[in-house]
Formats: sequence, C-alpha cells, structure tokens
Amino acid sequence: MASGDERHGEEEGNYGDATMGALREIYAGYAWADVASLEPEAAAARVRVRGAAQAVRAVGRRVAFLVLRQGSATVQCVVSRAGGGMARFAAGLSRESVVDVAGVVSLPREPVRGTTQQLVEIQVEKLHCVSRAVSNLPISVEDAARSEEDVARAKAVSSIVLAGEQRAHVGQDKRLDNRVIDLRTAANQAIFRVQCQVENVFRQVLLSEGFVGIHTPKLLGGSSEGGASVFKLDYNGQPACLAQSPQLHKQMAVCGGFERVFLVGPVFRAESSYTNRHLCEFVGLDAEMALRDHYSEVCDVVDKLFVAMFDHLNKNCAKELEAIQRQFPFKPLKYLETTLRLDYNDGIRMLQEAGVDVDPMGDLNTEAEKKLGELVRDKYDTEFYMLCRYPSAVRPFYTMPCPDDPRYSCSFDVFVRGEEIISGAQRVHDPELLAAQAEARGIDVATIATYIDAFRYGAPPHGGFGVGLERVVMLFCGLGNIRKTSLFPRDPNRLAP
Amino acid sequence: MASGDERHGEEEGNYGDATMGALREIYAGYAWADVASLEPEAAAARVRVRGAAQAVRAVGRRVAFLVLRQGSATVQCVVSRAGGGMARFAAGLSRESVVDVAGVVSLPREPVRGTTQQLVEIQVEKLHCVSRAVSNLPISVEDAARSEEDVARAKAVSSIVLAGEQRAHVGQDKRLDNRVIDLRTAANQAIFRVQCQVENVFRQVLLSEGFVGIHTPKLLGGSSEGGASVFKLDYNGQPACLAQSPQLHKQMAVCGGFERVFLVGPVFRAESSYTNRHLCEFVGLDAEMALRDHYSEVCDVVDKLFVAMFDHLNKNCAKELEAIQRQFPFKPLKYLETTLRLDYNDGIRMLQEAGVDVDPMGDLNTEAEKKLGELVRDKYDTEFYMLCRYPSAVRPFYTMPCPDDPRYSCSFDVFVRGEEIISGAQRVHDPELLAAQAEARGIDVATIATYIDAFRYGAPPHGGFGVGLERVVMLFCGLGNIRKTSLFPRDPNRLAP
Repeated sequence: MASGDERHGEEEGNYGDATMGALREIYAGYAWADVASLEPEAAAARVRVRGAAQAVRAVGRRVAFLVLRQGSATVQCVVSRAGGGMARFAAGLSRESVVDVAGVVSLPREPVRGTTQQLVEIQVEKLHCVSRAVSNLPISVEDAARSEEDVARAKAVSSIVLAGEQRAHVGQDKRLDNRVIDLRTAANQAIFRVQCQVENVFRQVLLSEGFVGIHTPKLLGGSSEGGASVFKLDYNGQPACLAQSPQLHKQMAVCGGFERVFLVGPVFRAESSYTNRHLCEFVGLDAEMALRDHYSEVCDVVDKLFVAMFDHLNKNCAKELEAIQRQFPFKPLKYLETTLRLDYNDGIRMLQEAGVDVDPMGDLNTEAEKKLGELVRDKYDTEFYMLCRYPSAVRPFYTMPCPDDPRYSCSFDVFVRGEEIISGAQRVHDPELLAAQAEARGIDVATIATYIDAFRYGAPPHGGFGVGLERVVMLFCGLGNIRKTSLFPRDPNRLAP
Repeated sequence: MASGDERHGEEEGNYGDATMGALREIYAGYAWADVASLEPEAAAARVRVRGAAQAVRAVGRRVAFLVLRQGSATVQCVVSRAGGGMARFAAGLSRESVVDVAGVVSLPREPVRGTTQQLVEIQVEKLHCVSRAVSNLPISVEDAARSEEDVARAKAVSSIVLAGEQRAHVGQDKRLDNRVIDLRTAANQAIFRVQCQVENVFRQVLLSEGFVGIHTPKLLGGSSEGGASVFKLDYNGQPACLAQSPQLHKQMAVCGGFERVFLVGPVFRAESSYTNRHLCEFVGLDAEMALRDHYSEVCDVVDKLFVAMFDHLNKNCAKELEAIQRQFPFKPLKYLETTLRLDYNDGIRMLQEAGVDVDPMGDLNTEAEKKLGELVRDKYDTEFYMLCRYPSAVRPFYTMPCPDDPRYSCSFDVFVRGEEIISGAQRVHDPELLAAQAEARGIDVATIATYIDAFRYGAPPHGGFGVGLERVVMLFCGLGNIRKTSLFPRDPNRLAP
C-alpha cells in the first residue's frame, strides 16, 4: 500500500506518451507477450503487450476498460489504479492509437465478451501511448469489419444504437482508400495470411516435384504484341512494355535446360473495363515443364498441387477461414481427391442436354462456364475440375494441336465454383509449326521472331499453366470480388494507395 | 539374332525424327530415367532418356558416340547397331538437338572422359530426334562454358586445335543475346539453382520468425517521387510510375496489423549508367517488422537469416558451388556464426588509422567500402559484417534518428566481400517528425502526403531492410558482374531477350 504521495508519483511515471526507447527502462521487469498467446495458465504473470487501442470505455472517473488488439487477437485491459489518473489517460486515448500495457494476467469472473481472449484479461500497471492516432479516423475498424448481414440487421432496426454508435456500412471504395485501417479487420488479417499459405504450398509442392523457382523480366522490348491491354513505357529511348505474362521467358528457361520452372510475380494488364474478377496488376503463379509423353503430365501437376493446397488450407488455416466466414459467409469448396478431368466435348454435351445453346467449336462464355460448373457439381459432387482438349481456334496460336485431331488442342482450363482459374497447355516447340499457326491467325511473324527463334536451338516438348494468386483465394473463399484478395488493388479506376 | 532383312527393318523404325506422341509406343518397355541419376547399380537396365545432343563423334561408318546432356548431367551413348544406319543418323544430328535414347545401361571398360557420368554409359537400341537445332548455332554451349583461365591457356598455345575446333571465348553480350543456349552451361545451371535456394531460405527463415509473405503493387500513382531514375508510364490517362522499392507499401502492411512482413518481387530503376552491380530491373528481397525495444531487432533478423542462408548453401549446394567455381573460380565466403556489428564511427576510425581520408559525417564511397572490407577481414576474419548507426545526413529522410544523438540514425548497411548488399533502418513512424525531416531536406511535403498520412492512424515503431537477390548470389559466389546472376538481365543497353 503506497502513501498518497508515492501513489501520485508512481502514477505519473506509469502512464503517458513515450517513445519506444524510453519505455525500455520503464517496462523492465515485464516479459513481452503476444495478445494471441495469452492463456489462463499465465495467470499472475507480469506481461507487457503492445497493440492498438480498439475501444476504450470509462466507468466512472477511476476505472477504464481498454480493448487492445494485436493482429486479429484482442484482450481486455482493466485500468483501475488508485487516483484515477491512468483511467482518465486511457479514456482520452484515440481509437487505433498504439499503446503499451504492462500488468498482471488475471482471470475474469465471467468470460469477457467482444474480445478474442475471453478467459484472460490484464490488470494494468503501466500504460503508455507510443503512437497517437488522429481522433477523426476516416473509417473505423469496427465498421469495416461488419458483415453484410450484420449491417442489414442493424438497418432493419435502424433506431437501435449499439455500443454508443450506429452501425455503419463502409463501402468498398472507402475501405480501399483507407486500406491501412481496413487491413486491420479480422477478415483481412485472415485473407492475406491464407494468401501467403497458398503461395507457400505452390512453391513447396513444385519444389518437391523438381521445379526450380525463377524470375523473369517484367520490362519487355517493343510494344505491339499485347495490343490495347499493354502498358507502354519509354526505356532509355527504346519503346518498351510491361509483361502481360511470363510466357516466353518461362518457356525459354525450360529450353535453357531447367526442364521444370515456376515463378511468382506481378502480371500487368491495362484492362479498361471494371469487373469483379480482373485487376490491372495481379500476382501470377506460373509453371512450365518439359513433357515426357503427353500434356496430361501438366494436368497431373495441377491436380497434385491444388488438392494439396486445398487440403493444407482446410487443415492449417481453419481459424483464418472462420474469421473470413464471419464477415463474408461462404461454403467450403467441394473438391475430389483426384481432380475430375472432363473432355471439352463432354462439357459441351452436358450443356446442350441442359438446354444451353453453345457452339461446340467455340469458347464458353462466363455464363456457360457458370452453368457447366453447376452441372458438374450436381453430377460429380465437385466444384473444382479440369476441362481438357479445347478447340484449337479458341486458344492462343502457340498451343499444340492434338496429334489425333488438330481441330482440338493439348490444352485445359481449370474451374473453381464455376469460374475459370487456371489456363494451361502444351506449347508448340517446333519453330515451323509455330510460324505457320501464327500466320494462320493473321499474326505478322516478323513481330514474334524472338519468340519463334527461341525454339531453333533444340527445344524439348513442354507445357505449363498460369493462375492468379488473388483469384485462387477469392474463389476458394467465395469472396466474389478480386479487390478483397489484393493487398493494394489496381483497377482501371484505382492506382492508390 | 535378327536376319539381315529383319535387322534392316528393325533399324528403320529404331531411329529417325519423331514426335513425342509417336515415341510413346516405340519406346514402350523402356523406363524413363534422368541422366543425373544413372548409376552403376543400374547396369543391364533398359532405360530411356531425353536430352540435348551435346557432342557426336562418328567412328567409321557403323559406330558413333553421342554425349547426351540433361540439365548439367551428361552421359555417353554408344551407337553401334549392325547396319550402321543408326550411327550415320547419330552423326548427322546437329548439336543441341533434343533426342530420345533408349538402350541398356552398361559399364565402360575405362571411366568415360568428358562426361559427368563416368562409370556408366548407354548402349543405344533406339534413337530419335524430337527437336532439331539449327546447324549454325550462334554460340556453342562448350564455348560458353569455358573459364577465363581455360581460354587464356588455349590462347597461349593458339595453334593447338582441340576436339576438332579452336577454343573460342564467347563475350558476355553475345552470351546474353543467346541466353537460351548460354543458360545450358553447368555454371549457369548451378547459379540459378543457388539463386532459388537463396530465395527459399529467405522465405523459410522469415516464415519461421512469424513474418507473413505479401505482395505490393509495382504500379504507383504520380511520377515525380523518384526523380530521374523512375520509369514513367500512362495509366488510363493518369501519370504513373514503376515502384523503385516497396518501401511505403511494406510499411503500410506493418501499420495495417501484419506486424512482420516480407516480399519478393521486381524493383525498377531507370539507371542510366552501366556498372557491374546495377540493373534496371532486379528482384528485391524485402522485410519490414514492428519493433519492440530497439532497431537492433532488425539486425538480429538479418544476422539469423543470412548465417542460415550461407550455412544452407555451403551444406546443400556443394555440387552447384563446385560447378560455378569450375568456370568462375572464387574463394568460399568467410563469415562468423554471429555476425559482426561495427559502429559507423569505429569503421571511420579504422579507415583513418589505415590512412584513408574519410569524412566522419559523410557517406563511404565504393572504394572506402572495399578498403574497410579488407580491414575488417584482416582484423575479424569475416567478409560479412554490419555497419551500424550511419550519420543521419547520408540516409533517407524517413530514417529514425538515434534517440541519444540525432546526428546519427537507427540504420545499418551490410557488406559482403567489401560491397554493400543490404540496407536497413528503423523508420520514422511519427507523422510530424517525418514531415519535419522531409522539409529539412527540401522535399515538398505535399508530394509525399500519402506516405506521411499512412502513419496518422496509429503506427507501431518499425524497421526493415532490403536486399537484391542477384547481388546476394553474385557476392556469395564472387561473380563480379550482376548480369551473371540475372536470368534475363535488363541494363541501360539491354532490354532483350
């Protein structure tokens, strides 16, 4: 029990604004802890945590409850020191300010509501603000974290005021404008952790299959190749453009003796239309491999890779998937242990039998793809499947025609929840056939001489596939908009932040 | 024993040009094998391999020796079928053509010279060309694979003609112009496998330290920021440029609640001068992390990461490092188990004591860095060390000044073999201080408002570092030119292939 004076002195030094350097001494004797790892077993331990002041509630003049958030974990901190100076200091903290709290881990009488840590709280002994947030935040994390359902429910009883403020819905553009705050929601914390895992599995599975990770240049000479959707720039006086795919360079790496390569990197498309599934810059996951007997070897890799990925996410990211589901409800993806491979012609037949008017030698439009996805799900109980042997006419000129019928090609697309996610094929490695196929499409062979020449020095039969990282996460989690799975998305209207 | 006719018939079908599809049947009964994994234990096994015809030597009209290369492994294939048709076919193969060979693994009487497989060879039963290389290759793999020493030795005895041709040296530009052939040398096969491992270790160590892998946009709004060395482009009518570093976005991710992030991706610099250590596009390995007490926590991560990386390369890439050394001799990098951290002032003192004229409050030029590298190596027996607490004046405006003396900064550089490889620091997370430091440097605060605003919503103290992937490999292997470690390099003069 400290005397009045001592207590006053103690309080003064025990809260306030302070720099990281100064706090080192003040907080000596407390062990750093992460909010997520606090456990009832740690009761009575003296810990120090740093996090964002997500919410503060004053009770009278001497007590304050502070919800501290670190990552997506939150804990209640009880400020109830004699004198009340610290509680008033806490009450004055602007939301989202970064604060240090030192205190004793304790067990609340009843589970705490509204925090992820419900069985422990912290009895605060020291409290300092390391970084003050402005008091008029453009959006609040709580609003950004609301589900559509939550907002709808609140609107239905619009007069109810909860937790001191009305439930507001924050539109996607406003969230993206203030992405540094928006990213702090539990769903966003989870989405980008899932995304990291998708990339990890992609790399690990391919490495274990003998692939070598490479990097290909994004700056390319010339500018005509990609037509309207290419970003052009000046390169030291030469015309240049940004790579719309690593196609040529990954093929060159295979021909350069690496046999199996993969890469992860940005892909640039100067899209002019605003859709839910296109970005002007996205992260491409690409692979290319020498073939032995048949292009189905590429399908084998895709099958193994994605089944391993989905298994991994379901097994190791359960918490993250739950967090995403709380804000953006979705049903777990249905997929088979061995991925269904459907012949394009069989897909056409299924659609025709269902009364859909499709050209058997044409491409499927988005609607037909959606419909086929439903038919496949109903018939085969899977929302992940491959459609193989597309008509040659609807694939790029460098796609290998089928040896038994050149009207069809050694190619495939992969669908998740009725949306195309992966495109793959065997490539033409014979320079004469490549030139002939380009000419037949009206492409000026002179403009693609570099591409064709790459196969004049001995080229193994090869094929590969490409997939967008954002699209994998979007479709696995049924998120409906690609902007949700890009950390800082770029679309025709958005180039910031 | 086949009769004459049968033999003739057998021969006809057993060699020739063929497609992958056709070979599937012809080669039934042979098991696919990799050249690298053939072993004496496999003697008498019937195998099929596919690779490049690196060299062919006819002996009389009925026998030919074919050196087949797959990746960086080579094996001798003996073509000696009765009739001689197959041997003549083999002798007519252009170098680098891709061929399939089926036959019986056998043990040569004497170790084969000039191939990596010296204790096994293949007695050829079937031989088909899958892809014909042009006969006039712009460069040969053998020439591209010669060491400087090898070329010099050959020049000294210039009249000697070896293996049917004079030893030619292929200049770097010509090699890069024909990269798809150049990449097939053993050294290049090794360099890019080492590079893949560097990235793997970077990712694995950081993942195990709680970092999340992210991706940041390369397309940025505006164009003035980076001055002359920025690539500008038009983005749907808005001025845009290519990111010269992921600095702002990785900081925003930390402030967005991810605490520890890393990323691997292209970095663009419109360099105008041609040097051995700069590229216009390189692969950046970047990390950024919330700090607890001190910026040395960033140094701790760098230390752990790079010691783990060097250990891993020495232990797991011995074969690759040997292959690089055969063409480009270098001494193994000297480094300590715990990386030396030298105070900038101590570094200055060491240089001054060695008679080097340096400004204690200025930056070190390349020469001084080299010299300090030598002094450190001599004194501490390491070629890998950190130089900490640079003068604030020589670091970017967003670098945190030291709390005890703002003339110095919470920053460091890391050196390998006397060359700077990593730059790191604590960043200013206080928007007012950030604006003040920018102003003091004459930067118009309005132009960096987005950057400053990112820290107004509560920002944890944080710091990070960046390193170029190509530079790590170049300096670890003492390669002397950054173009050797970029798969398809981009410099002021080179935008192809």
